[in-house]
Amino acid sequence: MKSKGIGKQTLVFTAPPHIVSAAAIVGDVEGEGPLADYFDVVLQDDIWGEESWEKAERKMFEHAVRCALDKAELTPAKLDCLLGGDLLNQIISANFAARELQTPFLGLYGACSTMAESLLIGSMLVDGGYAACVACAATSHFSTAERQYRQPLEMGGQTTPTAQRTVTGAGCSIVTDSAYAGKRVFNHVHIPAATIGRVVDLGITDAANMGAAMAPAAADTLCVHLGDTGRGLDAYDLIVTGDLGTFGSEMFLSLCGDRGLDVAGRHFDCGCAIFGLDQKVDCGGSGCGCSASVLNAYLLRRLEAGELQRILFMATGALLSTTSGMQNDSIPGIAHGVVLERK
Amino acid sequence: MKSKGIGKQTLVFTAPPHIVSAAAIVGDVEGEGPLADYFDVVLQDDIWGEESWEKAERKMFEHAVRCALDKAELTPAKLDCLLGGDLLNQIISANFAARELQTPFLGLYGACSTMAESLLIGSMLVDGGYAACVACAATSHFSTAERQYRQPLEMGGQTTPTAQRTVTGAGCSIVTDSAYAGKRVFNHVHIPAATIGRVVDLGITDAANMGAAMAPAAADTLCVHLGDTGRGLDAYDLIVTGDLGTFGSEMFLSLCGDRGLDVAGRHFDCGCAIFGLDQKVDCGGSGCGCSASVLNAYLLRRLEAGELQRILFMATGALLSTTSGMQNDSIPGIAHGVVLERK
Repeated sequence: MKSKGIGKQTLVFTAPPHIVSAAAIVGDVEGEGPLADYFDVVLQDDIWGEESWEKAERKMFEHAVRCALDKAELTPAKLDCLLGGDLLNQIISANFAARELQTPFLGLYGACSTMAESLLIGSMLVDGGYAACVACAATSHFSTAERQYRQPLEMGGQTTPTAQRTVTGAGCSIVTDSAYAGKRVFNHVHIPAATIGRVVDLGITDAANMGAAMAPAAADTLCVHLGDTGRGLDAYDLIVTGDLGTFGSEMFLSLCGDRGLDVAGRHFDCGCAIFGLDQKVDCGGSGCGCSASVLNAYLLRRLEAGELQRILFMATGALLSTTSGMQNDSIPGIAHGVVLERK
Repeated sequence: MKSKGIGKQTLVFTAPPHIVSAAAIVGDVEGEGPLADYFDVVLQDDIWGEESWEKAERKMFEHAVRCALDKAELTPAKLDCLLGGDLLNQIISANFAARELQTPFLGLYGACSTMAESLLIGSMLVDGGYAACVACAATSHFSTAERQYRQPLEMGGQTTPTAQRTVTGAGCSIVTDSAYAGKRVFNHVHIPAATIGRVVDLGITDAANMGAAMAPAAADTLCVHLGDTGRGLDAYDLIVTGDLGTFGSEMFLSLCGDRGLDVAGRHFDCGCAIFGLDQKVDCGGSGCGCSASVLNAYLLRRLEAGELQRILFMATGALLSTTSGMQNDSIPGIAHGVVLERK
């Protein structure tokens, strides 16, 4: 890599982009969880007056972008680019929302790692001088994900102990250059660096154990990031993973331990945080919308408030596919890391 | 946009990245077309010794990357990033190929516009100084696309006159900064600018008429690009579209005509070029692999040879989805534009 790339996979932003606004919207079950008060909108049901769950999901994506823009008193026309994706085939939630927003659009697919992928590429657009203001967003929906990836909800199937509940939620960050002079929700949140992940596969084949499929990728990205930056774990207040859940988190800590990293004291998993222990969600939350909503509702506020100074946000994606699954393939994982810093 | 962004949607690369190598691999039917001699590999059948078409498709993606690297005497370890995607759900072709190549990976979904989207983001990585060498790739496969988007081939269904044949093909470009000192297949091909597309929808609902769904997006991106750059059509030897086919091309020319642009004399559609008139492919070729293989096998060579000086490569994507189709949605389109210049 050249001047702005250090090590193998890490990009350094010399004019660190700012997150000036953000929004998150979640479903009713997420609204009963411990982070309920942080979300901008909590839906009363998961169809939101639409004809289908899929149409509700794309409405959530669009609404998250509009809500984040509104807070900064911006309009979609002020955006140089929208970047994002979701879990549905052909990322229809993001595509159809982009049609409504009429902005230049880059569609991404990183499964549940999409929020970090969009922040990474969006930050590059801004730091590189190609754009002044971009929106980075991701969404997922429990009912559409079950229908597409597993079984129709109408079957009333039972889950296994390692299963996770796909979060019904969407989140959006507005990322700008330092010349931005408009209204801000956040004055102190910057993105100084990001690490592009690799596809890692330890051979997990159980579609009801996404945490195990993603944990190796998260451990890989963390090790690469620390190696690239020459930093130790103590440089971060939190090492955030997207949606490993309780089982995947345990595996992540163990894999990090094998490499001599004791992450336990500073690990935060969005999938473990979004639901309460009393909620019947097996191993916790998952989906693009899990890390997207927890980041944009909760973590950015804690950074702004000075409760956190620097975190590594690693959204984790399980590259699950019914097609490859039926053809006896395992489930590879990927994790992209984004450094978020208070300045 | 800031200094490097001109107009609304166009990025200018001040240190234009070089395409130093490229490769394309296609199926047997494409190998009977007029461009047969340009492809690096022509398969004898479309399953290539694998257990499924899907596994053959991912092998094509991986092989296109390895072949482009080999020509420049590079290894996957020399890549700072691989960017790409395909048409299969969860972009499994690109994901599983990235797992084998072990490179940092950014997964993209722009339907058939993916080759241009990967060149656009890849060029930004290089021009912005974040990477020195990246691979941009896309693939599609006739048999996997029919199975996923339309009907099982075993049904022996008839096509309608506006249908196109998804190209079985993969293409990869190796993009580097100017400091690159290794072996080159191309010495003269640069990427000085690119235009991010918008999602455009004129309400087409026929999954057998992709050309019509994509033509409005291509016309939109062309107009925005010319407006952003202040250039006329005469600045380009060719205005390239990805896979509009004969019907979509006619519609594209008509939509451009409505805006006062007479593109006819310099329009080149990869979907019209890849198959011969005697081949039974209805309106021509389509799919990510169509523009990816024609660009990387044919157009780049013509640029290198000096037969072309500057072209606008607009890969066009129809955001077709069986889910949204069954829910009575129309098929939006998107087109990203990349300027390719001989210097």
